[in-house]
Amino acid sequence: MKVCFYGNTGHATTALAARNKLPGVQYTACCPSYPGENLNKLHTTAKKLGITLLQYSCLDEMLDAEKPDILVVDNRFAERYPVETKALLAGIHVYADKPIATNLSDLFDLYKTVRETGKHLWAMHTTRYELHFYTVRQLILNGAIGKVRMVNCQKSYRLGTRPDFFKKRETYGGTILWVSIHAIDMIRMVTGKECLSVYSTQSSADNFGNGEMEIIATSTLELEDNILATISTDYYRPANAHSHDDDRLRVVGTEGIIEAARRDGEHEVRLINASNNGFTPIKQLQPPMIFEDFVHTIEGRISGIFSMRETFLNAYTAIRAQESADKREVIRISHPVNFSFD
Amino acid sequence: MKVCFYGNTGHATTALAARNKLPGVQYTACCPSYPGENLNKLHTTAKKLGITLLQYSCLDEMLDAEKPDILVVDNRFAERYPVETKALLAGIHVYADKPIATNLSDLFDLYKTVRETGKHLWAMHTTRYELHFYTVRQLILNGAIGKVRMVNCQKSYRLGTRPDFFKKRETYGGTILWVSIHAIDMIRMVTGKECLSVYSTQSSADNFGNGEMEIIATSTLELEDNILATISTDYYRPANAHSHDDDRLRVVGTEGIIEAARRDGEHEVRLINASNNGFTPIKQLQPPMIFEDFVHTIEGRISGIFSMRETFLNAYTAIRAQESADKREVIRISHPVNFSFD
Repeated sequence: MKVCFYGNTGHATTALAARNKLPGVQYTACCPSYPGENLNKLHTTAKKLGITLLQYSCLDEMLDAEKPDILVVDNRFAERYPVETKALLAGIHVYADKPIATNLSDLFDLYKTVRETGKHLWAMHTTRYELHFYTVRQLILNGAIGKVRMVNCQKSYRLGTRPDFFKKRETYGGTILWVSIHAIDMIRMVTGKECLSVYSTQSSADNFGNGEMEIIATSTLELEDNILATISTDYYRPANAHSHDDDRLRVVGTEGIIEAARRDGEHEVRLINASNNGFTPIKQLQPPMIFEDFVHTIEGRISGIFSMRETFLNAYTAIRAQESADKREVIRISHPVNFSFD
Repeated sequence: MKVCFYGNTGHATTALAARNKLPGVQYTACCPSYPGENLNKLHTTAKKLGITLLQYSCLDEMLDAEKPDILVVDNRFAERYPVETKALLAGIHVYADKPIATNLSDLFDLYKTVRETGKHLWAMHTTRYELHFYTVRQLILNGAIGKVRMVNCQKSYRLGTRPDFFKKRETYGGTILWVSIHAIDMIRMVTGKECLSVYSTQSSADNFGNGEMEIIATSTLELEDNILATISTDYYRPANAHSHDDDRLRVVGTEGIIEAARRDGEHEVRLINASNNGFTPIKQLQPPMIFEDFVHTIEGRISGIFSMRETFLNAYTAIRAQESADKREVIRISHPVNFSFD
């Protein structure tokens, strides 16, 4: 399979990272996704793996010349829908950074296109493939905490210097769609349940000159089966903190509580239940890599860790969560959408 | 000053705990606050301090005979208002467990009574007087994290076996009023700001036979100055956890993040800012004891840590937070109530 890259504003290099796991994949070319986009990081990462990416100046030219099997869509966050649609209609599978769409109309149209073309579209929900969060998922699936009742997620990032397109909702999409969506995925991952209502808040105050960008946001979800969940998102992680992120996941069950969080360095998993005291970190399990899993899924080797259905449900939930913050009201979802790909 | 006790369903013994700090205080008597209430724990705690409490069978009899200066009101959580009012009107200061009232009508009437009688009424917001949370407050007041932008609070308790009155809202009052109110106090403490809107969720499912008692609850607050806050409350802390509670406070500021949480045992305070790396716990400061501070306040020796105004504002905010969960809607507070005690 041949892979091309459209932009690199986010996690495109996760496709390259799986190279050694995917001997049948060729990474051939890239092109910028907006005028002046710098693709040096993508080229450097590729070169370290012995790959030279041919750079085109425009998407159509690249697609015509390369005819890739997979397009990595990593452009400005609010501009993915037309590109994803174009690729799918050209018979190309799409590996796009989240969000795959920033409004419901685009999302439902994208769903229609995926159904019609039969091509695969995955969002880069990288958190499912991080050792610690994956370990939490597996332990819960194995009954470590009984029935899940409540989930608390934290996304905290260093702000650093963000590209100019973060300053406008029109190109950035919004912090709930760019950051909190990871937490939405984590919550859906550990509960297996859908959101019935969501309430969010957000603020762009004191955002160090980043225009409309919301620097803090919260969401509260009520899920099926009376499960409650909270999300806290911020870009205020101090510059001299030892890591870019301070992401946390706490899952409260009827028979135990499990958490993944940084304590003094790298993420640990701690579990308190009848047979674990919470003092000894749990040995972490090794998941496959996300792009590896995507390619295997296209080939029919399905792991079940992630899917197109999850991709659409995460985007749907995040869009509704952002709608709540924008309208300052509770959004109720009487019947969870059934994104079906049978 | 003479102190008497009405019931012991909660934190009455915090009044006894300050005994050595208060040589001028005499603890003389107690009486049950509902038929069959067992006061053994109160008597045992008193005896360990060399105090014998005379036990009366009814409140009126105790007040007539003892004429206390302070009544410790620690009865069933939803039944405080008439007792507090009776004591205040009898010229007695009141040290009551939270909540001091469970509806706005009682709360405003209580405010009127306090204003008219000039007596002092404090709720037992013990968290302000815990070393770790007090240390967080002092560091923030000293500018350690710049401007506060977001607060995350967790209240997590072991369920154990709860008295029967927890099973009914009528006597219990509700989990937001009994537990989340501590977090409301923490949020108000570290921001110095009032709540402009609140949204809460709660669930009584899977509560191990505890009737109407909500076993999980969340609240999201928007405060003055675009500050956001979240509260997560649960009674699911596993029985074999090393402590009853796992309470946490995380405060995100423009120049740093500070947290108080249990990591491997007792609460630590960690700070990341320009001069702290978050790896070395911060030395904790020693606050006065809450009842000591209450007595000193009555005597005119005001520390400023807590007050009657805070007592009423916490109750007001908690009642609105519970109203949100009960009505399943966002509660907006266009003008924060000014509980004034000049």
